[in-house]
Amino acid sequence: MDNRPREGASGWKRTAYSVIFESDTPAGRAFDIGLLVAIVLSVVAVMLESVRSISAQYGPFLQAVEWAFTALFIVEYVLRLLVVRRPLAYALSPLGIVDFLAIVPTLATLLLAGSRYLLVIRTLRLLRVFRIFKLGRFVGEGEFIVDALKASRFKILVFLSAVLTLVVVMGTLMYVVEGGQNGFTSIPKSIYWAIVTLTTVGYGDISPVSVLGQSLASVLMILGYAIIAVPTGIVSAQMALPSKRAEALAYKQAICHVCQAADHRPDAEFCWRCGEKL
Amino acid sequence: MDNRPREGASGWKRTAYSVIFESDTPAGRAFDIGLLVAIVLSVVAVMLESVRSISAQYGPFLQAVEWAFTALFIVEYVLRLLVVRRPLAYALSPLGIVDFLAIVPTLATLLLAGSRYLLVIRTLRLLRVFRIFKLGRFVGEGEFIVDALKASRFKILVFLSAVLTLVVVMGTLMYVVEGGQNGFTSIPKSIYWAIVTLTTVGYGDISPVSVLGQSLASVLMILGYAIIAVPTGIVSAQMALPSKRAEALAYKQAICHVCQAADHRPDAEFCWRCGEKL
Amino acid sequence: MDNRPREGASGWKRTAYSVIFESDTPAGRAFDIGLLVAIVLSVVAVMLESVRSISAQYGPFLQAVEWAFTALFIVEYVLRLLVVRRPLAYALSPLGIVDFLAIVPTLATLLLAGSRYLLVIRTLRLLRVFRIFKLGRFVGEGEFIVDALKASRFKILVFLSAVLTLVVVMGTLMYVVEGGQNGFTSIPKSIYWAIVTLTTVGYGDISPVSVLGQSLASVLMILGYAIIAVPTGIVSAQMALPSKRAEALAYKQAICHVCQAADHRPDAEFCWRCGEKL
Amino acid sequence: MDNRPREGASGWKRTAYSVIFESDTPAGRAFDIGLLVAIVLSVVAVMLESVRSISAQYGPFLQAVEWAFTALFIVEYVLRLLVVRRPLAYALSPLGIVDFLAIVPTLATLLLAGSRYLLVIRTLRLLRVFRIFKLGRFVGEGEFIVDALKASRFKILVFLSAVLTLVVVMGTLMYVVEGGQNGFTSIPKSIYWAIVTLTTVGYGDISPVSVLGQSLASVLMILGYAIIAVPTGIVSAQMALPSKRAEALAYKQAICHVCQAADHRPDAEFCWRCGEKL
Repeated sequence: MDNRPREGASGWKRTAYSVIFESDTPAGRAFDIGLLVAIVLSVVAVMLESVRSISAQYGPFLQAVEWAFTALFIVEYVLRLLVVRRPLAYALSPLGIVDFLAIVPTLATLLLAGSRYLLVIRTLRLLRVFRIFKLGRFVGEGEFIVDALKASRFKILVFLSAVLTLVVVMGTLMYVVEGGQNGFTSIPKSIYWAIVTLTTVGYGDISPVSVLGQSLASVLMILGYAIIAVPTGIVSAQMALPSKRAEALAYKQAICHVCQAADHRPDAEFCWRCGEKL
Repeated sequence: MDNRPREGASGWKRTAYSVIFESDTPAGRAFDIGLLVAIVLSVVAVMLESVRSISAQYGPFLQAVEWAFTALFIVEYVLRLLVVRRPLAYALSPLGIVDFLAIVPTLATLLLAGSRYLLVIRTLRLLRVFRIFKLGRFVGEGEFIVDALKASRFKILVFLSAVLTLVVVMGTLMYVVEGGQNGFTSIPKSIYWAIVTLTTVGYGDISPVSVLGQSLASVLMILGYAIIAVPTGIVSAQMALPSKRAEALAYKQAICHVCQAADHRPDAEFCWRCGEKL
Repeated sequence: MDNRPREGASGWKRTAYSVIFESDTPAGRAFDIGLLVAIVLSVVAVMLESVRSISAQYGPFLQAVEWAFTALFIVEYVLRLLVVRRPLAYALSPLGIVDFLAIVPTLATLLLAGSRYLLVIRTLRLLRVFRIFKLGRFVGEGEFIVDALKASRFKILVFLSAVLTLVVVMGTLMYVVEGGQNGFTSIPKSIYWAIVTLTTVGYGDISPVSVLGQSLASVLMILGYAIIAVPTGIVSAQMALPSKRAEALAYKQAICHVCQAADHRPDAEFCWRCGEKL
Repeated sequence: MDNRPREGASGWKRTAYSVIFESDTPAGRAFDIGLLVAIVLSVVAVMLESVRSISAQYGPFLQAVEWAFTALFIVEYVLRLLVVRRPLAYALSPLGIVDFLAIVPTLATLLLAGSRYLLVIRTLRLLRVFRIFKLGRFVGEGEFIVDALKASRFKILVFLSAVLTLVVVMGTLMYVVEGGQNGFTSIPKSIYWAIVTLTTVGYGDISPVSVLGQSLASVLMILGYAIIAVPTGIVSAQMALPSKRAEALAYKQAICHVCQAADHRPDAEFCWRCGEKL
């Protein structure tokens, strides 16, 4: 969807658009890089403020930084709205929503303490980085991954349903077997333990003590170790499929009527062996 | 196996059958969705009751809910039996067994305390969800996964035998090396530790302390890290194979009536061995 | 290598051979199953004896059981030696060595306490199980796995070298960064920690505390999480290769000189479309 | 790049070069093996010195050993520089840099205590081992792995970006949900926890306690368990591709001199587009 300013728009709008939204001019590139640096700095500021020893010393400074960046991002957001042809289309696009969410949390702190940490949503803005370096390349590879996952989504859903059912049943069994004194104090907690075990994370905050419990846990672990092969197999098989472009290049089935040669390129017009028109 | 009511069955039976067993009419769809909600609620009730703080406050209420749902499921089960042509065939089918097991535990509590938690078997009933949305799609994908696992079952069994032997031998070695004072108090417990380690779960409830023990453990970890590649490879390779249907199309099943040759091309008209018309 | 008794051997030798070494007669089958049960029981006896509470009560009984099974296995081993044509060839074959090792530890306890636990080597004898059920099938699948691993052995060695180098370098870095007070008391111990982390086992008996240490650990974890893809990819790719039999069945390249049909079976003598001699 | 001594170089230089840099003469082979042993011994010496109980007893001896090896390596390094045609080219090659870094840390201890441990960089010198045994074989397999990773580098970068974004967002959420009293004392620490969890390492030094925290953690674990399929799929699919050499054979590199068409069959004699003789 083309959202460039109208042909008849005033000159500054068209210049601003190319600087803010495009990155093929030196100015546009400089703007994008500056924006990225600002995003990284603002995210780092929020992180540092959460460390008590740092916030005790530099708290007011970090908060000032945060407000400054928020002001900057508000200006940028408003500019983006002013410059495009259809502001609503931009505001409702994925990038537009992320840009908006990157501003809200700071303002929200005026009403609700703690909401400031949602500022980390700003990290999502970093995805803009792909716009700068070899855009097409990265987007293409990202699409390849997303396509493979999309094509496997039903298989993955079936797999996840099986995993969830397994985890609920095993968690309940362990609750009955181990009981509260060993940390399995309720079914939900036991299910949490089953997830920790099946995924091979294994914190060790809860672990079975009785012989029967450890036997059941062993079964669950070996299951978890083995069935990781299922999603991996699904995605591998999907990604190993010949890509659309490769498929299009598959050999032509036609056979040359002069020399009987087969296996021509799909777009070949002449025989590769005798040069006859196909 | 067709289990619809006989042609001459009374009208209410045929209506009830289409509502309860099918989901292509609005009523059937509504029934299925209502049933799913009931199953989820009853499972959640059992889980909540196991949390002490909640059960202290709402215990009697949750038990009432549980009995209500059980009554509902009994009515549903009896209806299913009444409506089908061959009740026994339904009762012994996988879905029928699950439906039955979903009722038993509550009744069993009258005799045996604690058996109530087996109610979580009800989660298995959730698999009915696949009947509602794009049934064929999900069942097909599920079958694809199950087929791939079935085709690899001998390879997986060989792999599991190797893993179990490894775990028994390493567990015993660690028992000899580390001894009781570091948590390796018996061979079965050491085997449990070996499973926890090989599967990369790593609770840390038992961990080696001596230098020799840590060296052996390192070997086991690296083995566990590397041999996960084996089941993954087996399943990936299996899933990357052309599907069965495609395979069935690759070679014709017919056998030449003259020379008994098999494996003809799907479009072959003459035997490849003796040249006889197929 | 044929090791059956000579043609002119006495009758009992030939009968004993078929009972002990083969499993296609009812007697041979019964012998094999009895042997398996004996092996399992003797291994279980050793395991149970290692559990203090059980050994306190049944210790003498379990030791008697162990000696009885050892006597039985000695008799069996001697019989095998007597019956075969070339005893040395059997004694030095893999199965023969395992049979021998299954006896030694019990005898060794007369000299060395503790060596008894090596009895668990007896588990290896369980591999005989494959001889009974569909022998060829399991051996074939086992060979498939072993072949794939053999074909990938150089790639896996290169991968392991890279992993070991990484683990040594990261372990030393962490020793310098974290120092002794956080559990990283020596370079070998830090390397042990690096292995625990890279393989995603994560006991938690040693874990980084400083900010720099946690950052380095994060890098190591993400590396470990990502490079598991390498051995998996190697084995998957190897297993996905067309098997030798499938390759042999690949279509013949020849083209029928009458109807120009292609894609004949590799062993076809007649055209599948027109029945002409190829 | 050929770096052998000039034709007219003095005889000892040429002999020394073949001994130090090549391994196809008995002397060259002996030198390489001796060097490897020296490297292993010097690395082991540094490791042992870090173990307090050993260093207390053998400290001065181990330091002497270290200095002796360093002297040896300095002599070797200087010899290498003297013998080659272009010393700078060698000094700046990867092997040359590693050789240099293997010497520096010991000398640096005269200025900076603690820098000695960087000696473990010497392990990298062990990679020379590949020069001795079947060089080509290992290098070839190593290149295969590196090529596959290189070809997938954009996909892997996209995957890592997604993982990092996920980890930052989930870490911050957990910081807000769990708060400082459960170990989530700052956002960076919570991000560290998220990495420990997503990669399924699971130390257990920090683990969620609240119900909401455990639910979020469960989601993160299942995500981590499932998305490991993505890098694995990428690398598997890449490795299953026909090798580069095979690819190069698939299409001829020649370009038609009339129409500039490329991608001809390897055995083509006529252009597929214009029918001109190639």
